[in-house]
Amino acid sequence: MQYFEDYAVGQIYHSGRHRIDKAQIIAFAEQFDPQPYHLDEEAAKKSLFKGLVASGWHTAAITMRLLVDGEFKPAGGILGVGFDQLSWPRPVRPGDELRVTSEVLELRPSKSRPDRGLVRAQNTTLNQNDEPVQIFTGNLIVPRRPAALSDR
Amino acid sequence: MQYFEDYAVGQIYHSGRHRIDKAQIIAFAEQFDPQPYHLDEEAAKKSLFKGLVASGWHTAAITMRLLVDGEFKPAGGILGVGFDQLSWPRPVRPGDELRVTSEVLELRPSKSRPDRGLVRAQNTTLNQNDEPVQIFTGNLIVPRRPAALSDR
Repeated sequence: MQYFEDYAVGQIYHSGRHRIDKAQIIAFAEQFDPQPYHLDEEAAKKSLFKGLVASGWHTAAITMRLLVDGEFKPAGGILGVGFDQLSWPRPVRPGDELRVTSEVLELRPSKSRPDRGLVRAQNTTLNQNDEPVQIFTGNLIVPRRPAALSDR
Repeated sequence: MQYFEDYAVGQIYHSGRHRIDKAQIIAFAEQFDPQPYHLDEEAAKKSLFKGLVASGWHTAAITMRLLVDGEFKPAGGILGVGFDQLSWPRPVRPGDELRVTSEVLELRPSKSRPDRGLVRAQNTTLNQNDEPVQIFTGNLIVPRRPAALSDR
């Protein structure tokens, strides 16, 4: 478990890997993003993507799971208040194996709440060829180390 | 089906509604965001949220479904290349009923591809009290109306 004081700008955290397959892509799309290029291989071939691709929100959800299971473990959980500049630079296709690297960009103690700070981190989801498929910069609330522990 | 030419800055599109319950929140969290405040009511009571809340990525996925089923229907599908400034200003709790409004902010014909344009839209997900639970500005690729149709 990591506290605000454990982070430093430039640190990089890694995740495990998740292989996505056709069944996962279609199951997510049926529930949350029922568009032809996420649901049906034949229809997808005629689309901009020239084949079945995962919903970007599916990539985002898998990224979250990889983060939760990965090395980046703020005390109190991964508590995002939002983010900016999420991009999906290339599609995710069946058989892709995804992993995430998180780089600490900025640390800001909270002015109003002395028990916490904000950690700004860039999270890059890569495929098996080390090509980025999603990049986003998130702002996380992270608790400061309790005084009782750090002072004694 | 709407083409780039059908959009104008200031237009507002609406969605239907989706009621989220405890079972949905836990099922999504088990798969994609297994953190105590998304999985377990008792643990959630002791968290920052003081009760069970949906993963932000679950809210994002439901928002996508509401968009796909809503009035905003670009020809070629809702094709996001990314976005900026996504925020979750307040948590989503069991029993909340969500809907989305999309406001067209900016229209930009593609310089490199004369057959398409970019539509920048702010998508606000509201709960049953009309309070925003998610706000994001997305950039969508939208095809231009084929000349054969618009000229005849």
